[in-house]
Amino acid sequence: MYKLGIDIMGGDYAPYETLKGVKLALDEYKDLEVVLYGDENIIKEQLKDLSRVEICHTTKFIDMGEKDPVTALRKNRDASLALALTDAKNNKVMGVVSAGPTQALVVGAHLFLKRMDNMRRTAICPIIPSVSGKKTLLLDSGANVELKPEDLCDLAFFASVVCKCLKISDNPKVGLLNIGTEPGKGRMVDKETYYMLKDDKRINFYGNVEGKEILTSDCDILVTDGFTGNMVMKTMEGTALGTGEILKNEIKKSFLAKIGYALFMRKAFKNYKDSLNPKKIGGAMLLGVNAPIIKAHGSSDAFAFKNGIKQCLDLVRSGLIKDVKENWDASNITE
Amino acid sequence: MYKLGIDIMGGDYAPYETLKGVKLALDEYKDLEVVLYGDENIIKEQLKDLSRVEICHTTKFIDMGEKDPVTALRKNRDASLALALTDAKNNKVMGVVSAGPTQALVVGAHLFLKRMDNMRRTAICPIIPSVSGKKTLLLDSGANVELKPEDLCDLAFFASVVCKCLKISDNPKVGLLNIGTEPGKGRMVDKETYYMLKDDKRINFYGNVEGKEILTSDCDILVTDGFTGNMVMKTMEGTALGTGEILKNEIKKSFLAKIGYALFMRKAFKNYKDSLNPKKIGGAMLLGVNAPIIKAHGSSDAFAFKNGIKQCLDLVRSGLIKDVKENWDASNITE
Repeated sequence: MYKLGIDIMGGDYAPYETLKGVKLALDEYKDLEVVLYGDENIIKEQLKDLSRVEICHTTKFIDMGEKDPVTALRKNRDASLALALTDAKNNKVMGVVSAGPTQALVVGAHLFLKRMDNMRRTAICPIIPSVSGKKTLLLDSGANVELKPEDLCDLAFFASVVCKCLKISDNPKVGLLNIGTEPGKGRMVDKETYYMLKDDKRINFYGNVEGKEILTSDCDILVTDGFTGNMVMKTMEGTALGTGEILKNEIKKSFLAKIGYALFMRKAFKNYKDSLNPKKIGGAMLLGVNAPIIKAHGSSDAFAFKNGIKQCLDLVRSGLIKDVKENWDASNITE
Repeated sequence: MYKLGIDIMGGDYAPYETLKGVKLALDEYKDLEVVLYGDENIIKEQLKDLSRVEICHTTKFIDMGEKDPVTALRKNRDASLALALTDAKNNKVMGVVSAGPTQALVVGAHLFLKRMDNMRRTAICPIIPSVSGKKTLLLDSGANVELKPEDLCDLAFFASVVCKCLKISDNPKVGLLNIGTEPGKGRMVDKETYYMLKDDKRINFYGNVEGKEILTSDCDILVTDGFTGNMVMKTMEGTALGTGEILKNEIKKSFLAKIGYALFMRKAFKNYKDSLNPKKIGGAMLLGVNAPIIKAHGSSDAFAFKNGIKQCLDLVRSGLIKDVKENWDASNITE
């Protein structure tokens, strides 16, 4: 059995959708046990079957609109997220899932759970789709606005272990996001990172990858600093939505096209949207800390939240943290 | 009459498509005169009517695949692009259009044309579409990987004058690309730039703009350093193409959808593609130098190249450079 800590109070549709997600996950994964952090009354009202469920009662939580999550967490060590992360530190749970604010999760993981020994930085790591249907890890997409080359190497290694654990690839290819494919492109930090990744024996380095290749590249992992990663991730999101909107407007303008859509193409459009839907994948991972942590989408419905729980469960089942620790010492410098 | 310098040897389809583009432009714009830099024999063979055309003969040019454009330009001061930029410096032509390599244009503009007095940096500035159909200037998208806050302010001011000259807006709104909308977001350089833009009286500052809002924001101008701008621009390009590809694959999978596309929706898809087509807009501008310079798409066909010439002509007609110089001295610091 694997026991996960679930913050049922985080997210736009918490606690009702998160609790529905928990129920779906418990029904589907028989090796799953959960500790639920949140209001006991609501939990008992929503979940009739409490086998494999422990409740850690609290009515405090970090609001989705919280401007200063650091202070909020410091002042509320009994907020649902803080309690879940503290239990992960004390090995009471093996991983944590929350749909609460990203920055609260990043800060909370530092405050309550601690970074893994050797890791100097953490990273937010969403999984993005690609044209061919494969999955790609993009990190850091927002935990640290600046990262040193050695931090990027450690994070790339961590992500490589994640890729193996999630069975995305046996020998994951790591690309460095950059403004050109040749070595020597980019800022000083990018140039240095290029050569350091190339020499790191823990990593299967592919080379530089440009923004225009993100959806088509062969890489399983794309690394960059948290500023660039966040810009890129949100630009992808905005462009996919924006171009979809432009297409929708063109369809609406034409009577014929509206008919074509309604009669023939609704399904193809639905599949298209599904393949870009982050809810199907789960959530972003927080890498670099001592337990698998999944940040589910803030707007998670029950289905999305269940997938976030599944992702965390997969990482726990696979022994991610142990794997990272055991493989850490492989030399990362060429002789 | 306005005389522009046209590098007919730059671009994937030069010189035949570029010459066709010149012909289209001369037919359409009766106030246009051109100096064509390139092979005299080909020019005379392709253009029957040489009224309003001067030829500056050279057989040298910067290859599209040139890895080291700096050295290539230094060694070939009689390459077509170098000659055009030199003539711009000597006021023999009022602006330059080239579909050659971007880095060659950036370097060449520094070597032969020179920066405008006061401008410490130049910027590559493409025009991007938006969901509402308006145009947005995105800079710097690749001339300088790093830019100081004061450089970004000067470039934002320059771009504001461009927006007025191109009649995109009378009072253009400037947004700062960032990883959150609140002040205080981003790297140190972004935080400093935020407050400097806010205090700059030459600029109508809107605030921070996230990647997900690029296609929907109200801003006429989005500023950031050349590394981030280049990543964002290419990510948009890749996402638009990639998601289009995913949709195409979904349509191909379904017989019904294929029929729907062929019978009803071909036109709507064409309009959609057209609205995202950079060829309709012209090219990216190089801002900060002493004459309007347009970098047409490397893959420009005649139509795209003609639009690049039009864009340069519009800027020359509007008196851009004079406007920038006259407005430079408006105080950019609050008292």
